[in-house]
Amino acid sequence: MWKDLRPIGRNPETRGYRRYAWTGADTDCREWFKAQAQSRGLTYEVDRNGNQWAWLGDPAAGDAVVTGSHLDSVPDGGAFDGPLGVVSSFAALDELRARGAQPTRPLAIVNFGDEEGARFGLACVGSRLTAGLLTAEAAHRLRDADGTTLPQAMERAGYDPEAIGPDPERLARIGAFVELHVEQGRALAQTPHPVGVASAIWPHGRWRFDFHGEANHAGTTRIEDRHDPMLTYANTVLAARKKARPAGALATFGKVTVEPNGVNAIASLVRGWLDSRAADEATLAEVVGEIERAATERGQRDGVRVAVTRESFTPVVEFAHDLRDRLAKLLGDVPVLPTGAGHDAGILSGTVPTAMLFVRNPTGVSHSPAESATEDDCLAGVTALTEVLEELACR
Amino acid sequence: MWKDLRPIGRNPETRGYRRYAWTGADTDCREWFKAQAQSRGLTYEVDRNGNQWAWLGDPAAGDAVVTGSHLDSVPDGGAFDGPLGVVSSFAALDELRARGAQPTRPLAIVNFGDEEGARFGLACVGSRLTAGLLTAEAAHRLRDADGTTLPQAMERAGYDPEAIGPDPERLARIGAFVELHVEQGRALAQTPHPVGVASAIWPHGRWRFDFHGEANHAGTTRIEDRHDPMLTYANTVLAARKKARPAGALATFGKVTVEPNGVNAIASLVRGWLDSRAADEATLAEVVGEIERAATERGQRDGVRVAVTRESFTPVVEFAHDLRDRLAKLLGDVPVLPTGAGHDAGILSGTVPTAMLFVRNPTGVSHSPAESATEDDCLAGVTALTEVLEELACR
Repeated sequence: MWKDLRPIGRNPETRGYRRYAWTGADTDCREWFKAQAQSRGLTYEVDRNGNQWAWLGDPAAGDAVVTGSHLDSVPDGGAFDGPLGVVSSFAALDELRARGAQPTRPLAIVNFGDEEGARFGLACVGSRLTAGLLTAEAAHRLRDADGTTLPQAMERAGYDPEAIGPDPERLARIGAFVELHVEQGRALAQTPHPVGVASAIWPHGRWRFDFHGEANHAGTTRIEDRHDPMLTYANTVLAARKKARPAGALATFGKVTVEPNGVNAIASLVRGWLDSRAADEATLAEVVGEIERAATERGQRDGVRVAVTRESFTPVVEFAHDLRDRLAKLLGDVPVLPTGAGHDAGILSGTVPTAMLFVRNPTGVSHSPAESATEDDCLAGVTALTEVLEELACR
Repeated sequence: MWKDLRPIGRNPETRGYRRYAWTGADTDCREWFKAQAQSRGLTYEVDRNGNQWAWLGDPAAGDAVVTGSHLDSVPDGGAFDGPLGVVSSFAALDELRARGAQPTRPLAIVNFGDEEGARFGLACVGSRLTAGLLTAEAAHRLRDADGTTLPQAMERAGYDPEAIGPDPERLARIGAFVELHVEQGRALAQTPHPVGVASAIWPHGRWRFDFHGEANHAGTTRIEDRHDPMLTYANTVLAARKKARPAGALATFGKVTVEPNGVNAIASLVRGWLDSRAADEATLAEVVGEIERAATERGQRDGVRVAVTRESFTPVVEFAHDLRDRLAKLLGDVPVLPTGAGHDAGILSGTVPTAMLFVRNPTGVSHSPAESATEDDCLAGVTALTEVLEELACR
């Protein structure tokens, strides 16, 4: 299975993946999913929001056990984030059949669309729409860097953007959702366990900082006459690190755009995006507030106006405690750990009993071609997921 | 004349100009130049490097007096930087004829190609090629942000890129070159003089700083495990200001690119371009050296490798002292002032006696739509240039 998926959307230079939602690479991944479903005789469906489903048993029977993840990627992403969960789901289903286990509940594998939000700036679009956490109107307004709207992108990929919207009937059929994912940190690497169970997802959000200065000639404008927003931005980047560390939080500027972005021109506008996360919402609000204050104060010194827009926010997610404890025990008292990363499982957890399994990542690297997991640990993940599906769907 | 040139390449939103070399907007400006030359019965020529010339008198006679500037712009540039010099040249020629002055030497107006270097990253390509300060081989390797090479761009605009190269015969025909330019600072604004004469151009250069870190997930990577090049970049931006100020120098980061530039990804690579200038070369070298050291030291703390490449360097230019003093006296003991900005006049000054006139800029703003000069001051510039041409070419 891996073999067919490996080359899709891969940059031969960096060996990283670029599988943005509704692009050719994404379409190729989706074709792969459909072929996997059909070759196993599963009932293949695409829902109104473009999420793909492969059913063993009657989709309409209710109380289904669903597993899966996503196939799209961040820019220059790794091979595992997303695809490991989908591939492991098919492999676990194969293993379940090999064991001769008889499901007593419907079983499904899902590929949620546009999980990373790499193209339109909002993560988990497929699951958010389905769960009613993103309206069709708001989704219709999403635009990528080239100005293409989400409806245009969906249409070009062969989907009907007018159909998107909440799908409570579909959610009501699901009795439990389990997402397997490569760990995005090194907590398991410090234990003998190849697999862990998620406790919670930290609250997290994205804030856009606009630093408005004044364009001018870099070679002739006296220092006293400058309103250089690059200085205010730079100071804010350093402030983010300084404010986050003592709070045990994370605060990162990973994306920046500059106007006019000329070597000999003082910038008129610098836009930086802050990604921040913390163990609880109060700490997160405090850290982001301190970063905003630092930006505004420095802006006053630089003659630069600072405007901050919250582009997204996801509250803390506590996964269903009984399911979480049941799975951790089933798998042999494996570690139960929180994560800072958002997932479709987090989106669904408000409506459906939801759990996550993490597969050990020796370096902890994620969202990069250096992301990894050993073959043994991946197989341990498949075994764990098989046991979970057997426990939930076959007993 | 202004009226026809005004709308070309203008962004209706910012009201700034984008007239990159060899683009449609540049071609339109060049058509305008040709029409101006022909409507005055001047001999129109394009040289091997794509610079445009309009001759009054025999181009081959030698000892010519040449004036002019450039028509291309920086991204979102102002209306005056470049075009004021070309428009004033035609206006001065008209005024000279209206006065009935009889040139005793050939007179020419020139539009140098690709002065700003906004497209290919190297300034004054047209004059550098002509003066032999840029080889055809090096020019052929220039590429714009879309990967288009300079030869491809010239070919698309209708020029022969195989013809480019040094043009000593053409330079040998020139007895004096005078470039009129809007001032890019506020020195004249503090005097009663609408026009000044240039003394020197500060040495200046561009250095590319590559900050190599490690891409990772912004939401899950512990602070201790990060190699975040954005922090090193930010620290270097602030260091540049700190090191330049006490030395009376300028050091600006106006352009930055980030890989992968995703909101939830720690950057793997941040590239920042430093533009730095100082009154003398020793000071410039010292300031840039200190910025490099600050970058490297912070890089060691951040686990980020820093590589610095000098992309261009222009030594100090002292304009011909006798010509400079003669013009300052002719115009009524006007101010004589240095500038931090590079010009075609600076490139030619190594081969040809060269002078520059500056027209007062009330705000000092340059390389921005806010760049300005009053109509009265522009007319004073035309009068001054007329007197200079009369002095040099008609006596």
